[in-house]
Amino acid sequence: MAKYLLNNFIVREFVKEALKEDIGYGDITTDYVCSYLRGDETFEVNLKTRADGIFCGRDVFKTVFDVLSDNEVEVEFFVSDGDKIKKDDILAKIKGNPRYILTGERLALNFVQRMSAIATYTKKFVDIVEPYGVSMADTRKNTPNFRMFEKYAAKIGGARLHRFNLCDCVMLKDNHIALLGGDIKKAVNMVRKENSHAHKIEVECDKIEQVKEALEAGADIIMLDNMNLDEIKKCVQLIDKKAIVEISGNVTLETLPELAKTGVDIISSSSIITKAGTLDLGFDYL
Amino acid sequence: MAKYLLNNFIVREFVKEALKEDIGYGDITTDYVCSYLRGDETFEVNLKTRADGIFCGRDVFKTVFDVLSDNEVEVEFFVSDGDKIKKDDILAKIKGNPRYILTGERLALNFVQRMSAIATYTKKFVDIVEPYGVSMADTRKNTPNFRMFEKYAAKIGGARLHRFNLCDCVMLKDNHIALLGGDIKKAVNMVRKENSHAHKIEVECDKIEQVKEALEAGADIIMLDNMNLDEIKKCVQLIDKKAIVEISGNVTLETLPELAKTGVDIISSSSIITKAGTLDLGFDYL
Amino acid sequence: MAKYLLNNFIVREFVKEALKEDIGYGDITTDYVCSYLRGDETFEVNLKTRADGIFCGRDVFKTVFDVLSDNEVEVEFFVSDGDKIKKDDILAKIKGNPRYILTGERLALNFVQRMSAIATYTKKFVDIVEPYGVSMADTRKNTPNFRMFEKYAAKIGGARLHRFNLCDCVMLKDNHIALLGGDIKKAVNMVRKENSHAHKIEVECDKIEQVKEALEAGADIIMLDNMNLDEIKKCVQLIDKKAIVEISGNVTLETLPELAKTGVDIISSSSIITKAGTLDLGFDYL
Amino acid sequence: MAKYLLNNFIVREFVKEALKEDIGYGDITTDYVCSYLRGDETFEVNLKTRADGIFCGRDVFKTVFDVLSDNEVEVEFFVSDGDKIKKDDILAKIKGNPRYILTGERLALNFVQRMSAIATYTKKFVDIVEPYGVSMADTRKNTPNFRMFEKYAAKIGGARLHRFNLCDCVMLKDNHIALLGGDIKKAVNMVRKENSHAHKIEVECDKIEQVKEALEAGADIIMLDNMNLDEIKKCVQLIDKKAIVEISGNVTLETLPELAKTGVDIISSSSIITKAGTLDLGFDYL
Amino acid sequence: MAKYLLNNFIVREFVKEALKEDIGYGDITTDYVCSYLRGDETFEVNLKTRADGIFCGRDVFKTVFDVLSDNEVEVEFFVSDGDKIKKDDILAKIKGNPRYILTGERLALNFVQRMSAIATYTKKFVDIVEPYGVSMADTRKNTPNFRMFEKYAAKIGGARLHRFNLCDCVMLKDNHIALLGGDIKKAVNMVRKENSHAHKIEVECDKIEQVKEALEAGADIIMLDNMNLDEIKKCVQLIDKKAIVEISGNVTLETLPELAKTGVDIISSSSIITKAGTLDLGFDYL
Amino acid sequence: MAKYLLNNFIVREFVKEALKEDIGYGDITTDYVCSYLRGDETFEVNLKTRADGIFCGRDVFKTVFDVLSDNEVEVEFFVSDGDKIKKDDILAKIKGNPRYILTGERLALNFVQRMSAIATYTKKFVDIVEPYGVSMADTRKNTPNFRMFEKYAAKIGGARLHRFNLCDCVMLKDNHIALLGGDIKKAVNMVRKENSHAHKIEVECDKIEQVKEALEAGADIIMLDNMNLDEIKKCVQLIDKKAIVEISGNVTLETLPELAKTGVDIISSSSIITKAGTLDLGFDYL
Repeated sequence: MAKYLLNNFIVREFVKEALKEDIGYGDITTDYVCSYLRGDETFEVNLKTRADGIFCGRDVFKTVFDVLSDNEVEVEFFVSDGDKIKKDDILAKIKGNPRYILTGERLALNFVQRMSAIATYTKKFVDIVEPYGVSMADTRKNTPNFRMFEKYAAKIGGARLHRFNLCDCVMLKDNHIALLGGDIKKAVNMVRKENSHAHKIEVECDKIEQVKEALEAGADIIMLDNMNLDEIKKCVQLIDKKAIVEISGNVTLETLPELAKTGVDIISSSSIITKAGTLDLGFDYL
Repeated sequence: MAKYLLNNFIVREFVKEALKEDIGYGDITTDYVCSYLRGDETFEVNLKTRADGIFCGRDVFKTVFDVLSDNEVEVEFFVSDGDKIKKDDILAKIKGNPRYILTGERLALNFVQRMSAIATYTKKFVDIVEPYGVSMADTRKNTPNFRMFEKYAAKIGGARLHRFNLCDCVMLKDNHIALLGGDIKKAVNMVRKENSHAHKIEVECDKIEQVKEALEAGADIIMLDNMNLDEIKKCVQLIDKKAIVEISGNVTLETLPELAKTGVDIISSSSIITKAGTLDLGFDYL
Repeated sequence: MAKYLLNNFIVREFVKEALKEDIGYGDITTDYVCSYLRGDETFEVNLKTRADGIFCGRDVFKTVFDVLSDNEVEVEFFVSDGDKIKKDDILAKIKGNPRYILTGERLALNFVQRMSAIATYTKKFVDIVEPYGVSMADTRKNTPNFRMFEKYAAKIGGARLHRFNLCDCVMLKDNHIALLGGDIKKAVNMVRKENSHAHKIEVECDKIEQVKEALEAGADIIMLDNMNLDEIKKCVQLIDKKAIVEISGNVTLETLPELAKTGVDIISSSSIITKAGTLDLGFDYL
Repeated sequence: MAKYLLNNFIVREFVKEALKEDIGYGDITTDYVCSYLRGDETFEVNLKTRADGIFCGRDVFKTVFDVLSDNEVEVEFFVSDGDKIKKDDILAKIKGNPRYILTGERLALNFVQRMSAIATYTKKFVDIVEPYGVSMADTRKNTPNFRMFEKYAAKIGGARLHRFNLCDCVMLKDNHIALLGGDIKKAVNMVRKENSHAHKIEVECDKIEQVKEALEAGADIIMLDNMNLDEIKKCVQLIDKKAIVEISGNVTLETLPELAKTGVDIISSSSIITKAGTLDLGFDYL
Repeated sequence: MAKYLLNNFIVREFVKEALKEDIGYGDITTDYVCSYLRGDETFEVNLKTRADGIFCGRDVFKTVFDVLSDNEVEVEFFVSDGDKIKKDDILAKIKGNPRYILTGERLALNFVQRMSAIATYTKKFVDIVEPYGVSMADTRKNTPNFRMFEKYAAKIGGARLHRFNLCDCVMLKDNHIALLGGDIKKAVNMVRKENSHAHKIEVECDKIEQVKEALEAGADIIMLDNMNLDEIKKCVQLIDKKAIVEISGNVTLETLPELAKTGVDIISSSSIITKAGTLDLGFDYL
Repeated sequence: MAKYLLNNFIVREFVKEALKEDIGYGDITTDYVCSYLRGDETFEVNLKTRADGIFCGRDVFKTVFDVLSDNEVEVEFFVSDGDKIKKDDILAKIKGNPRYILTGERLALNFVQRMSAIATYTKKFVDIVEPYGVSMADTRKNTPNFRMFEKYAAKIGGARLHRFNLCDCVMLKDNHIALLGGDIKKAVNMVRKENSHAHKIEVECDKIEQVKEALEAGADIIMLDNMNLDEIKKCVQLIDKKAIVEISGNVTLETLPELAKTGVDIISSSSIITKAGTLDLGFDYL
């Protein structure tokens, strides 16, 4: 049972589709090889990391073999999501019919390699901003239909999550405001009338004047879009804890320390997911 | 109509799921804003690139707005998949009800940013190996359930595709061969009996002795796994056009020229997809 | 295009399933009758209301015939969602092949009869509380898998919507707090650390002491559960606009005026949906 | 294993969709709370009724927790579908990880509250007509895509079910007959030629002359639509057991006794489902 | 619009799945060929029959190209379902982008070859029994998940359809009766109490005594299972129009005339579908 | 675990759909009968063959009862896929709740009757060609959406499988070649450039000249379409092991021996599947 987001019965369906994607009508290599076997052979395999990082994807990894083998393959993990792992650590032992292990290997690795990379890369950002009492947040720039795994991994890496989707909170951008006549205050009030009382309202601003208007309108979150350090600091002073301050734009490991020092609450960045690449994990057959 | 792989009716279903993922039960911001409008407003938006690269994802981009608006939004493209694009180029014009444009923007961009990045990054590898008569190929290290878009983009970037999935060709790895007793020749012959005559047999080898055996067994493709340049050259000589020679392992833009000079046929690498990141494309509202 | 929530491509899928539910493997009566016809016959039918109320369900109604007839049946509406309708009003004209009209009639009516009933019944509650500046909200007590239509209808009836589902905002009930040790303040702070900055935190309280704690903890919404009028008034005073005040429990058309006078912000009630019944709408064949 | 209709593997799929509807991408409240727990905590909860009635929905209730927890939560029932329940009766004990219980509570209740209400309300009608040897039947006025649960509950409440869907039996209404020229006898014979021998033919009549024609045509069921008591009695005499007599229209608990005395076989009414509301059942955390 | 059963929106979904089955991730041959074309080429193809028979499958055939090409390919039919066709007749003209025609050809043919064969073969049985006033019926021995097409084709071939599925009518076989104690009369009455008044009751009998019991119990249909001609005739006399008489078992084109002369109402046989094979239809490229 | 192709989790989904097809909203006969039972009754049934043949479909048969009963019904098999069976052999024992056995019987039989027939019929072809070192192959003329079961059965009957779908290997037919200008050699080379190195290229030829061209172009497989025995022999000589030789057209049990003597490698025929009919297997209730 994963800590957040990943409900077993939903993950199981995703894994089924992914197995169909990877198997097509059959793993012909393994099928042909196994047609010569008795059927009671057993493989033992270690999941090993070939790089340092933060592990992520335990339940999904296990689900691949559960679905494939109807729970016949045993997967024993020695780490949990969020644990630090070091090159050459053995993360899990997989034991069972070679057929299932050979067929499921690639997909199981595809999940944990990607998810661990995101957790690892996110953690680097989080470690920089945390001492300043600032949180990292992700964005909606995700791989289509793979979002739950990417966001989960970012959360495991220490990020607080931004909107999962478009019904999570109201976020007024310049084009929304333009449609309502261009006046931020009026726009916020119009939207508040329609909005659920359970939903926050965030307003994206790129000028200090807009921040003032958003503040007067009672926005819950003010997002400073692509402002420079000076502007950010002025806005933080102006807002003075009356709204949550989020910044976005030009966030890299290099720019991060200065951004964190501005006193904002949240720094959101798509990079923690999109630039994470993959972490090198592999199978060792014993 | 895309050139390869991407059948409209399949893409449409994927896009539907992705829209559900991003919209949840509703784009509340846009819904609330639009509840104040007459409903006949029109937005005109340019899809612009903020970086150089190879464009990819035209049909998928369009499908996002087709599904969302029941074909009401007009999308006119000025580039095709595979075209070179330069920073600030206008790639397409999108015109229609602001509601659909605002709601679909993020997903449409998520597709083309990722696919264009893969095409762009793949192209760098291809440009290096092509002069040597060598082809790049991808692998099965993909984002689960997003493979068709990633492989398509790699193909647009100039790669020849390797196995899409496990039923595409037989690929005997060391563990398969071990299960059949360890003798490559015997293993290949056993598998050939079961194999469709329409499928090739590829054998993964990490020693020259194995290459000899695979060759004698009549393997169609011999995959040299993680060999050094000297070993590769010896194997190429040994194989002497009697099988297709593929290499894999330690393939980077730096190692690529030397690898390409060895005379192999195919260099396969997961990096062309997994390390591609995203290309910076965006919407300009007019 | 509906004003909120109901995305066409999602409604279309729901309607397909509902048509399969109602048709099974075929509308045998209509099939057998139509097997004697030429195929170019036309029916004209009026959708008429046999009771006063608020109309709701226009797009869904139309979608039933669109799906069934591949857009051949013409549906022209004279009312929009939210319009007042009076007994014997003609709401729409349906024209097309009798086969589609006869087969689709029941399902199309099932949608609008239920949705209009909810809009109508909700409006009664809203009309009572509105003069006091109070909003009605719904709950998650819905018909499984039919929620989007029920919530949409409540919204059309004038309610502000509460959580659509469990990821909409944090809502700490007594059992959640008990799991974290029983101290509301501590619990809210623990959860806030994990929570997205984009999500509100609501705390359910049934005693004034709890309200104090929740307030100190900085809860965004305080939900007074089953309190009497005196208790409610005291809590409203205590909270003093520092959080949104919601009440729930024993909400009927009779108790509503007194509840509304207490100065709370939101009154939530499952009844606006569960007790709405159906509104009598029918087809008149011309 | 339910007595009728509700096949486990179909219910399970419906429950999955309903859980997705209610959970969205995650029960954030419970996720955040449980992230502080060890994971081996246990809750014990009673399902209790707060009103008298007929219980219905046992298997569906259990399936909610089975799906959510992969069969980890124990649900022990003390009643079966169709049993009388009295205010404050404990109907079931639920025991297991608090996470699953908190997340599944609302959906599980939504099923049994609605289904028990239908069984309870239907029973009131059945109790009135049964002494006269008359059966109640339902109609196709149902909540779209929720029909199997509504019809099942009506059956548990003692109703005999009418057509589940349009392929269950032939039912000729006035518009069908009009399409075939208006002559009932001719219409029935035309349809009988096409009809499966395994299917009955029902004819809807609103005048005695039509009843005569239907009878001569050999209709299996004659449905008297909105006739008054005198007309009904005349028709019953006329039909004289040569066909099943069904009546429909203006069926309320008040009109029911007089209708039941007319000697008809079946009284069908949508009210037993659409006006049932919900029965007040709840969880008591121990 | 097909005459019976085959609702467009349901057929369309089946066709999508079948296209995915046949295309996998892409029609690589056609994709590679078309990557060299301009994209505005046009093919004209005739659908021709190479054998005599009854045509069936018009709408499904068309749907294959509609789905594949988003309605771009034109399909003009010169025959309707049920029409006699003669070797070398041109049945339809298909015109459009070669890509879609080449990719869809096989699947489109697979439908009409099978469906036309069933219609053709069924017609042979029907032509024999019709002069005796007897109807042919099919059974539930079908290809799993392909039933709607097989039953539709049998209906086009002139059969009256038996139960489509297990909810169509009650059919008591010996094992059902054994479970209720073995007494047919008692069993029928027990089941009738539970049964919808809209559903017939059929009883399977293999002895005359059973027929008597079933008749007394008021069975709507009596099925004589594997009786010889003498037994059948005795039963027909005994039943004397008080129930529909159906026979089953050993039904071949050879035994059919004698069976038809016995005076039964219905002869049911799985052979009309399972032994039909395929009818030779093909594409002629012009 | 089946030897090839049939992954459990995929078969399970197919079986679910097929059960829904056959059950509709309920097996009313069995439901009504079982509503009178205690629920702990047990049936024991033998699966028996009433004809000689090759058995096929063991896992699918079992899955029907697994899905229906949530693994409560025990199915013990005495034969495996591919075993010879003789009239009156008992193939399996099924034991469990009569409800599940009665409801699942028809579907379970539909699978094994069809699959065993295909295995049996295919075996006849294979037995003829095998002594000549020739293999039988199937085609893509299958029942839509039932292909995996048909191809699996043909494989069990001894056939080597041809393309499962359009992405399995390149197959250039005359129309493809015409689109590329008509020159086989040029066409093959154009396609090879686009083709994956993991995919073979097959060329369909109906004249010897074409065979020469295909051979020069380096085709992996040459398919001789509808040639007579003399032509075939000439082509075999010409090709001289430089490509795999496949023939197709006019393949019957009668023509097969002469075709097998020509020295070709593969004889492909749709008949092994389309003309197989069903094998007579049934249930014996004990």
